[in-house]
This record gives sequence, structure tokens and C-alpha cells, in this order.
Amino acid sequence: MAHCIRYLRLGQQAQEPIPTPSRGHQPISKLDWHLQRIRRSVDRVSNPLFMDIGQFRRAGYQAIDRICDYYISLRDMSVTSQVEPGYLRKLLPASAPTVGEDFQLIADDYLKYILPGLTHWQHPSFFAYCPASCSFESILGEIYASSMSNPGFSWSVGPACTELEAVVMDWSAQILGLDKSFCNTTEVGGGVIQATACDAALVATVAARSRYIHEHPQVPLEKLILYTTTQTHSLGEKTGLILGLKVRALQVTEEDEFALRGETLEMALKEDVHVGLHPFILIATLGTTSSGAVDRLDEIGDVVKSHPFLWLHVDAAWAGVALVCPEYREVCQLPAINSYADSFCTNFHKWGLIQLDASCLWVRQRKHLTDALDVTPEFLRSKCGDAGTAIDYRNWNIGLSRRFRSLKFWFVLRARGIEGFQKHITNCIKLNTQFAQGIRESDQFSFVAKPFLALTVFRLAPQSLSHLTTSELNGLNRAFYARLAARDDIAMTQTELNGVFCVRMSIGAERTVEGDIDRALAVIAEEGRIALQEWENMQTQVGLCCVP
Amino acid sequence: MAHCIRYLRLGQQAQEPIPTPSRGHQPISKLDWHLQRIRRSVDRVSNPLFMDIGQFRRAGYQAIDRICDYYISLRDMSVTSQVEPGYLRKLLPASAPTVGEDFQLIADDYLKYILPGLTHWQHPSFFAYCPASCSFESILGEIYASSMSNPGFSWSVGPACTELEAVVMDWSAQILGLDKSFCNTTEVGGGVIQATACDAALVATVAARSRYIHEHPQVPLEKLILYTTTQTHSLGEKTGLILGLKVRALQVTEEDEFALRGETLEMALKEDVHVGLHPFILIATLGTTSSGAVDRLDEIGDVVKSHPFLWLHVDAAWAGVALVCPEYREVCQLPAINSYADSFCTNFHKWGLIQLDASCLWVRQRKHLTDALDVTPEFLRSKCGDAGTAIDYRNWNIGLSRRFRSLKFWFVLRARGIEGFQKHITNCIKLNTQFAQGIRESDQFSFVAKPFLALTVFRLAPQSLSHLTTSELNGLNRAFYARLAARDDIAMTQTELNGVFCVRMSIGAERTVEGDIDRALAVIAEEGRIALQEWENMQTQVGLCCVP
Repeated sequence: MAHCIRYLRLGQQAQEPIPTPSRGHQPISKLDWHLQRIRRSVDRVSNPLFMDIGQFRRAGYQAIDRICDYYISLRDMSVTSQVEPGYLRKLLPASAPTVGEDFQLIADDYLKYILPGLTHWQHPSFFAYCPASCSFESILGEIYASSMSNPGFSWSVGPACTELEAVVMDWSAQILGLDKSFCNTTEVGGGVIQATACDAALVATVAARSRYIHEHPQVPLEKLILYTTTQTHSLGEKTGLILGLKVRALQVTEEDEFALRGETLEMALKEDVHVGLHPFILIATLGTTSSGAVDRLDEIGDVVKSHPFLWLHVDAAWAGVALVCPEYREVCQLPAINSYADSFCTNFHKWGLIQLDASCLWVRQRKHLTDALDVTPEFLRSKCGDAGTAIDYRNWNIGLSRRFRSLKFWFVLRARGIEGFQKHITNCIKLNTQFAQGIRESDQFSFVAKPFLALTVFRLAPQSLSHLTTSELNGLNRAFYARLAARDDIAMTQTELNGVFCVRMSIGAERTVEGDIDRALAVIAEEGRIALQEWENMQTQVGLCCVP
Repeated sequence: MAHCIRYLRLGQQAQEPIPTPSRGHQPISKLDWHLQRIRRSVDRVSNPLFMDIGQFRRAGYQAIDRICDYYISLRDMSVTSQVEPGYLRKLLPASAPTVGEDFQLIADDYLKYILPGLTHWQHPSFFAYCPASCSFESILGEIYASSMSNPGFSWSVGPACTELEAVVMDWSAQILGLDKSFCNTTEVGGGVIQATACDAALVATVAARSRYIHEHPQVPLEKLILYTTTQTHSLGEKTGLILGLKVRALQVTEEDEFALRGETLEMALKEDVHVGLHPFILIATLGTTSSGAVDRLDEIGDVVKSHPFLWLHVDAAWAGVALVCPEYREVCQLPAINSYADSFCTNFHKWGLIQLDASCLWVRQRKHLTDALDVTPEFLRSKCGDAGTAIDYRNWNIGLSRRFRSLKFWFVLRARGIEGFQKHITNCIKLNTQFAQGIRESDQFSFVAKPFLALTVFRLAPQSLSHLTTSELNGLNRAFYARLAARDDIAMTQTELNGVFCVRMSIGAERTVEGDIDRALAVIAEEGRIALQEWENMQTQVGLCCVP
């Protein structure tokens, strides 16, 4: 342990005797005791230019304590922040200070000014959007990774950053049951950590376009067309906007549970090819945002087989992590993903216990990424890069510099193990089953889509009002959702499914327990009742007004 | 203090008496004492599913201690890692564990397996590429930000995330002397934190293309052309690759100190327009990577004035932070930036004390970003978003979810103050002056470009070998650089300036002091001497071989 020896050498400079330290309930070794002596002596040396090690240690311990305090009191906090736009600018000075301020003041201002302006995504009653995972082990990963800030754009500038990413992407592929061809060990396919699923879709689309144009060099960009569905996440449309390419959202129907069918794709291909367009990628979804729909990748795969230059990207940003449980692989169309997908994305920072940014992109052919994105000027050349013996991840994504994201993957995958991930997923699904049961038994609410994994999409649709039109029911539900959204003790999201306004209940926070689900059911029952009453009062008034 | 009251309520559940705690040398208040009691009682409750608060506290303290240890011993470490490609995969298991592992084991493995595979960018003798800032205050910002993982894609999902970003981007614009029109308070222009300068250039280019196409709807994408220079960072070419657009690298010369001149731009515009192309953006540079060149933005501005749809993006990824010192604003062409730039980017994660990812992008007209990138499906709609009363930063960049990056800006800007930033910049420039003086006084080395700010570009060019051709000198310098690159106690980067192979010395690590510069000069003198001797021996052998 060369490190320790160095510390001890340094330690010999400490002159004063320092009492034997002890920390909490843990016994401490002789080596630790020596290390602590040295630390304390170093902590006494101040640097006039910047925060010294001793100051950092104190501020760091305090940060850890405050994170603990945050989680201790999380359940008692409001879920959503109730501040008004512009609240913070009013509280802060108009410019940075000329002379540096004491860090304690800054840390206290974080509690005073920032915390009240946050919506707490880890709150047990946060059911909005998708979950935004943040486990303790993941926080620790970020703490270690942030300590030395390595931009890892090439293997050579931080070998461990690149190598650990290659390893944890393989581990992750394995725990999800992805085909071996997606693993880095093949040296043909491989995985890379992107910031978001938008970046992943963009990178996949650039690779698909590059492959297509390589095979069809005469095709102008204006003739290319990117396929999504009407239920694909906005990342599909945004990718089109960024690249300036045509996007066609293929229609999905309620009868098909909002999933894209093979025949719809087939038909669109025929139509577009007929008018001289060139479909080059389909962004399909496992677990759409609005309803958790799973596109029929089996049928899609059959179509793709006869269109070898139509790239199939499967966006499983939210639901993909559920593949860790073998019992959900069939319903999540894993066999089709393994047979047909050119690329696959899932965000561990949604439901996967690893915090933002942790979007995984796997490709079957890494050369399509590097063919499309490799730029290596002289100042980025290196021995290993030139020899091709190592991955240079900068050529697998948009940016050059990259945060050391793999460390948090390594920490969480090891600390939880496969069973830990499975427990987290099945626990959330169990809670959703409990919620869905409540909806099923209620005569106030009904499902708008079949509950899937940890997502339930429902609306207020009392049996007594079965004669209302969709538009009238939408109005009622907008009023109902407005009541929910005005509460600070629970968070859900609105959405629309083929013209039907509805509410999403998405479960994923690690601290959510059965009692929170019961309370959520009680809250929607209460708000539903009031919304209904108000709506009925309004109807009566309208009726009265109409009386001549 | 509503938080504290909650803790105290919780605390009343603790039954056992806990001894008065003390931490280090600091006296502790009665409130703190109460808080610690509660923390300890909470720490005793274990959660079978995940790391509990007590375990996190211990692991967190340890992480802080180990970061301190890292910085204590940093100077004694190797600068560059000497591992071979594939070193890590051999050391790690082939798959994630089934059952979770003890976190202590994982934390120890970080020291054992990861640290030896890192190149240490904060090392006082790291002079390669550009600096990658990482101050203690910035680490603390990341620790707090990581504690609650808010994806901040809309104002409403975490108001503080958006509002703080708007505030610190204005503070940063002010300290750099940027024109008020770049500030968020104008509600017309504004600033946004991107992950990297590549993302910033991509976003600016997408906005520029969208603006251009809006005004010239008949122009096909194939006719658009993006301008860079032969010295622009690879981000220029990469932006072209991503968007599938033509790129033209305008030629710069040694006589112009590798800076783009107005007349070169003017000429290119004439040529390209003549052949039916549509130049729509110029990515100009303040401080090129290879030599620190500053494009002649004053002249370029004159040209741009008569081409209103040519977007001027100024990439100042590395050098931009120097604008914090008024004395460098003229040489950095700030007046021209303020007059002509449509967008401006600088990376605080390079020379600006704030770690990756901290790339700032300012635009004069935010509507060009949102016109190009806004996608708002039902599930992303919110009251404030609909009313337009708040910024939704997702429409200012590629991804949807965004890390809470502004917190580290706030911490560092406040903790250092404007004077702290100025001290850091002038200190690095002073050290570079010292290094440049050493080169100037040596008869072994010469400058390949004028030293600029904290960058010196030089090569081995002994006065005795003034008769050598460029190609011969390049060979000698490749040998010289290979020797430098093989050392683990110093890091510099190779580059090429219009055919001349040379070495970059870039200063920016916070712990670098005069003695490190003296040592760097001694190292290059020694390696230069050996490289020269080996080269001369080789020449003699070649000469001997030629004897008939």
C-alpha cells in the first residue's frame, strides 16, 4: 500500500501529541489511528488562496450530516415546492461577491434558499413523471468521482474511467438479459453511458443516418425520414428537430394498447418509399411515458428483417430496468430486442437506483458509432488510440469530455447485487398492484390503459356519469388534476392518450411503502369527490341560467 | 427553522442517553448537540433493503477522509497512470454479484483498483491538454447536488434548479465582462449550463441553422455550410458530422499567429455563395487548443455585419475564464465579442475552478434556441411553462433531464469571489511567464507560437541544428515527446501547428507552484538533451553505413 506509506512519511512531520481518536461506535485500527493523526496535522495548515484540506474535511462531514438530515426528515417535507417564479432572484444579490465568503454561510444558505425551492423526487409520495433514482451508494459514487474530476475522453487520459465503463456496461447488459452481442467483450458491439435518453437517441440516429447514407450516397437529407409513434417520448421529435430531419409519428390505437404494430410500420414504409422518402430509423419504445405501452417488437422485427438499413432503436428509458426480473422479460419483449434491435437504451437514473446521469446505450455494431463520430486531431492522439487497443469513448457520444459516471454504477451494482435490483423492482410493482386494485374497486375512477409494471394511468369517470362525452369527461378530469396539482403533499402527472385526458401514477421512490399508496388512494378519492361536486354545481348553475 | 423542529420531534423517540458529542476542535451549539443525538438514534435503525442512514453517514465520512488523503498525497503520486489496456477487466469479476456486497469492501477496492488506473489532472505537474478544474468548493457543490437528484428539466419540477442556473449564469456573465444582452434578466438573451463545449457548439449550430432555414426555407440542407478554421477544436468538425452538414475549415497562417482574419472569411463567403452554398455559422475561437490563438473577432465582426444570417459562435472553452481579469479583456477581444457574437461559450470546468460538467453557453436571443428545440407534449406541460413566466431549460439544450449543475457554480463563485478567480488566473499566467522565460533563455528550445495566458507551445530546436528541415525537426521532436510521454512524473501534450510538430505546456492546476515549473524546465532540458544525443548517434550511424 504505497499510499499509506506516503501518509505515514508525511505524518512524521506532526510535532504535537494528538489524543487517540475514536469515531462513533467503530473500533479503529492502528493504521487508521496513524492516518487520523496525519490528517489532523495537515488540517492545521491553511492555504491563503483556497479552501484547505482541514476546512474541506469539516465542510464535507457537515455535508454528509446534512444529507442524512435530509433523508431523516424527507417524509415530513412537502413533496412539491410552492415557490413562485422568480422567488430566488429576489433573495439573492444581483452579482457575485468581490471577496470570497465563508463557506459555512454558503452551506447554510443552501438550506435557507435552495431546499425550499426543490420538488423532492425521492419523497415517498412522489408519483409524478418517472422516478429519478438516487440511492446512498450512488451518492457515494458521485462523491468519489467528483473528488478528482477526470474528463476521460480517451482511454489514455484516465484508463480506469474508460475501463470501468466498459465493465459495468457489460455487467448491466447481463443483469438485464441482453444478448451477448451488446457486450463490450465482443469488441464488435458494446455499451456506453450517455447523459440522457435524448443523447442516446441522438447518437443512435446519427449512426443510423451515417450507415444509411454510406449505403445510399445519392440520397439527400431532405428525403430521409425518422419514424417514431404518436406515443414515443418527445426525444423522438427532438432528435428530428436537432438533425433537421423529417419525422413521422406512426399511429397507435387504444385497441392495440397504444403499441406500434408491425402492419402499421409495414404500411408506412410502403407509403413513404412510394413517394421517394427513405425511412432510416425507427425509435420504438418499451414502456411509453404516457401509458407504459410496449411496441410489438416481435412484429416490428419481422418487418425490419426485410429492410436491412432501417435501424431499430429501442428506447426503454423508464421500463428497461425491469428486465432485471426474469418474470417480466417476455412481456417486455426481450426476445425481440435481442433478435432485432440495433441499439437499446435504458436509464438507470430513472428506475435503476443510480442517479442522473446514467443513461445506458448499447449497440450491436460499435463501428457505426465511431464511423459516424470519430474526430481525432493531433492533440487527441495517443499510443493506445492509434493502436486501437482501447476504447476511446469520446467517439461514442456527442461531447468530448465525460464525467466519471461508471463509478456510481460499480458501487450500486456491487452494493445491491442482482437480488437488490430485483427486490427494488418487484417492490414497486407490488405497490402499483395495490394502487391499481384501489382504482379497480372504486366506482369513481377507471383505467385509461392497462396498469403496467409500476405505472397506472387512470381518470375520474364515475359510473353515474357514463353518459358524458370524452370532451366533458376531459373537462372534469382537468379540474380534478388541477386540484391534485395544487397540493404540496403528493405529486402525479397529467397526460393525454389519444384525446383522453388522464392522470399518471408512477411508483419508484425507494422510500415509498404501502401506507403511502393507501394515502394516495385516499387523496385522489377526496379530490375526485370535490372536483365532481364542483362540476355538478357548475352544471346546475348552467342549467339554472338556461331557465328562461 | 421548520426543519430543525422536525428533527427534534423525531429525536424525542430516542430512549437511551447519548454522551455529549464533540467533533474536532469546534465548539458545538445546543441545537447541534440535539441534532447529533437524533442522528445517532436514527443511525441505529437498519433497513434490510438498502443502505441505511447510519451506514451512509459512516461511508460518507470515510469518503471525505479519503478525498483529503488523496489531496494530501497527490504531489507524491505519479501524474499519469502506467497501466496497460485491459488491466481492469482482468482484476474484476465477469459479472455483477448476485447478492449485495459490504460497502467497505467496495470503497477499499476503489483505492486498490481504480486509483492506480487514473491520470491525476489535479496534480501540480499535470500540464497536458487543458486544465480540468476541481476545487474543494466545487466538490461540495456536487455532494449537495447529488444528494437529492432533481432532473430539473422544467421550472416546475425543481424551481430552485432553474432559478439558480439563471442567476449564476448572470453572475458569471458579469464577472467575465459580457454584455448585458447575454444576461437572463433581459428575458431576451440568456445563459445556460451545458455539459461540454461540444454540446454548446451543437446547440448554437442547431439554432443558427433553424434561423437560417426560417429565413431561407427553400435552401436544402446539402447547401448549408458551417465555418471553422484549421485551428478550431475538433468540436467544429464533430458538429458537422453530427448534423450531417458541410464543414469548411478556413485557413489560418503562422504570420497571423494562427488567428482567423476578416479578409479570409470575406473571401470564403464570396467563393461559397458564388457556388451556391449557404454559410450559416462561423465557430470562431478565443484561445485555440493548439496554440491559444484568438481569432480576429474585430475584423470578423465587420464582415458579419453585412451577413446578418451568418451566426457568430465564439468558442472560448479554455481561455474565456481569463476575461475575469480586466487586463486581459482587450487581448481576448472582449469588445468584439460583446458587439458581434450571437453566442459565446466558456468552460468553467477547464480553467474556472468548477468541475465537469460546467460549460457555459450565452446567447443574445434565447428565442433562437427555443424556436429550434422546444418540444412540449402534454406530460411536460405545467402552469408556469404554459404562462411563459419561467425558463424551461430543457428547451435550451439537447437532453431533457439535467443535473443540478448550478449549485457548484454558486458555491465556487461565492466562496472565491471575483478576486479569488482573478488570483487563480493571474497566478497561472505568472507561472507560465516563468516557464516561457526558461524557454526563451534556453538555446535548446524555441517557441512555435507566442506564449498566451497560461499556455506555451514550444519545440526542441537547438541553435546548432538550425539547418534542419521541418520534417527532420519534426522527427527529432516526436522522439523528444515520446520520451516525455513515457514519464509518469509529468504530463504535457503533443500537437501540430501548420505542419510543425510541437509540445504544449498548459498550466492550470491549483496546486502548481514555482518549484513545479522549475522542475518541468529541468525535465524538458534533460529529455531534450537525451533525445538530441540519440538523434545525433543515429545520424552518425546512418553516416557510417553510407561509408562505402
